[in-house]
Amino acid sequence: MAQYSAQLDEVFVALADPTRREVIRRLGRGPLSVSDLGGAFPMTLPSFMKHIRTLESTGLIRTVKSGRVRTCVLNRERLAVVDSWLAEQRRIWEERTDRLESFVTDPKENHP
Amino acid sequence: MAQYSAQLDEVFVALADPTRREVIRRLGRGPLSVSDLGGAFPMTLPSFMKHIRTLESTGLIRTVKSGRVRTCVLNRERLAVVDSWLAEQRRIWEERTDRLESFVTDPKENHP
Repeated sequence: MAQYSAQLDEVFVALADPTRREVIRRLGRGPLSVSDLGGAFPMTLPSFMKHIRTLESTGLIRTVKSGRVRTCVLNRERLAVVDSWLAEQRRIWEERTDRLESFVTDPKENHP
Repeated sequence: MAQYSAQLDEVFVALADPTRREVIRRLGRGPLSVSDLGGAFPMTLPSFMKHIRTLESTGLIRTVKSGRVRTCVLNRERLAVVDSWLAEQRRIWEERTDRLESFVTDPKENHP
């Protein structure tokens, strides 16, 4: 549970930046080299590499070096922790709605 | 689009903290006073209030003061920006899968 929470912290921090979200979006279409990716962003390569390293350390992307080319690959499974968290919230909301409905339908029976 | 991106920044930052996620989870069951909520967390009230203010300024919760009691209410709609963003990523992944499938099925027709 603590590990899941720490993963959520990391992933949400990684997603709280427009450059990193755009990298994830572009890699959703397929792997790209760092230079092809970085060319699309108005920043220096060292600044861009910081974002790449954040994404890599969070596990949202992997990078593979072949010769002089470093290729970035999206790791979709990592985004699943966000899905799980949202699904948990929805479950809580639905339970609440069910409780309210049962109260409205038959207040005496369900809430003596 | 810039506004949507700024909203995502704010919401992801707000969600990147276990205390704030736990507040959202508890408020999913229904409104609670700040004192009822805060009692569950091992921190001082001023520290807890910082989290409440972050959640409020992001629009993830609303607070209403009545007499001496401040009540917190979850604003579920605000979490929808996260859903939208995830849905956009999935759409991109599916388009990619469709392209790969059409290439495998008939490479000449689709990629002359």
